[in-house]
Amino acid sequence: MKVVLIRHGQSLWNLENRFTGWTDVDLSNAGLEEARKAGIILRENGYSFDVAYTSLLKRAIRTLWIALHELDMMWIPVYKTWMLNERHYGALQGLNKAETAKKFGEEQVHLWRRSTQVRPPALDKNDPRYEASNPKYKGIDIPLTENLLDTEQRVVAYWTHHIEPQIKAGKRIIISAHGNTIRALIKYLDQVPADGIASLNIPTGIPLVYELDHDIKPNRHYYLGKDGFMPEGTIPKTL
Amino acid sequence: MKVVLIRHGQSLWNLENRFTGWTDVDLSNAGLEEARKAGIILRENGYSFDVAYTSLLKRAIRTLWIALHELDMMWIPVYKTWMLNERHYGALQGLNKAETAKKFGEEQVHLWRRSTQVRPPALDKNDPRYEASNPKYKGIDIPLTENLLDTEQRVVAYWTHHIEPQIKAGKRIIISAHGNTIRALIKYLDQVPADGIASLNIPTGIPLVYELDHDIKPNRHYYLGKDGFMPEGTIPKTL
Repeated sequence: MKVVLIRHGQSLWNLENRFTGWTDVDLSNAGLEEARKAGIILRENGYSFDVAYTSLLKRAIRTLWIALHELDMMWIPVYKTWMLNERHYGALQGLNKAETAKKFGEEQVHLWRRSTQVRPPALDKNDPRYEASNPKYKGIDIPLTENLLDTEQRVVAYWTHHIEPQIKAGKRIIISAHGNTIRALIKYLDQVPADGIASLNIPTGIPLVYELDHDIKPNRHYYLGKDGFMPEGTIPKTL
Repeated sequence: MKVVLIRHGQSLWNLENRFTGWTDVDLSNAGLEEARKAGIILRENGYSFDVAYTSLLKRAIRTLWIALHELDMMWIPVYKTWMLNERHYGALQGLNKAETAKKFGEEQVHLWRRSTQVRPPALDKNDPRYEASNPKYKGIDIPLTENLLDTEQRVVAYWTHHIEPQIKAGKRIIISAHGNTIRALIKYLDQVPADGIASLNIPTGIPLVYELDHDIKPNRHYYLGKDGFMPEGTIPKTL
């Protein structure tokens, strides 16, 4: 059994070097192209899917839509959930990464970005970036900030309750998500220790295949290139 | 309570004047533009949706996707079902309409197209156009041909079991579908007699709003233009 994970293509704020989190920015032109290539790679390697999952953020949804177009599988069911949203970046959302590093120091920013425990400063509930009144998040107790473990908790809950049962039912699944939600999933699946996940980068727009056994434990995983398995060293660095 | 129906934009086979039915042809460039305009009209008139429904055919799915993009509502749940597919056109699928009229006569073709009772010649089960082995239709006893009443039956069943309960729950709904599935729905909602539905054309890409009372009976309906209600005579003729 295989599951394919894909991190959305480059977004407009990747391009502007800003912290994005739950901010709903769209793909850049390069990101659109990455999504198209991901779909073509999957098609050329003979991949087919029964069900798709994605977040409520358009950069992930659009990446999925473009890939499904290339696969000629626009008709498959697509489930969208906030539980696959990118990690919430709290009050850092919208700030320029370089300016933030200048203001708070490289080390602090690295901790905010890569520590599993440290949370970025929380949003104030009066902050316009707090989207509790957005109909998208109706009925959801949305976070004000998250560390990677917070993100992992919701991602794994969704995986366990919604995705695993589908895999066990024999469904072939593609998940279009975000850097930190995919890292959280890898951490859970491969039981990566907290200090091992910090250095793990997920390239954008490259399908990541997990082969799973009957207990949904991973046998192996690999990135997918034009001719199948992509050898180490040929995998593009993440943005 | 309002429901918005939208017939997909011009398809490549509308352009080639061919019978389409369940053939999964994409939108033409004009069709893409119609879908975009539909989304803009809905946005400019302040429409918002909680749930979307569409068929398993990409011309309807893409119309919906483009409209949702323009509405900034890519995140809403989208349910896709074969029960909203275009009427199955049997062995006519793929044939040129003008050549078919030359071969069988205008009157026969008119009957095939617009009679509620007459079915086009059925597909043979060995015909490559019979898609029983397409994973898209797995587990579904797909038709070999349909008259409008056949189409109406499945569309109304879907409406009654899936869409009506959502409307009663207060959900704002958009349905992206096809000429004959929308005609079938109108026939049911407005109790149009069989001889009245024959002459009813549904323009492509123009949002059709139904205002419903608490028993889900229509109070009134209208097409939506740039400035809201679109007066008779300004509604584009269908393709």
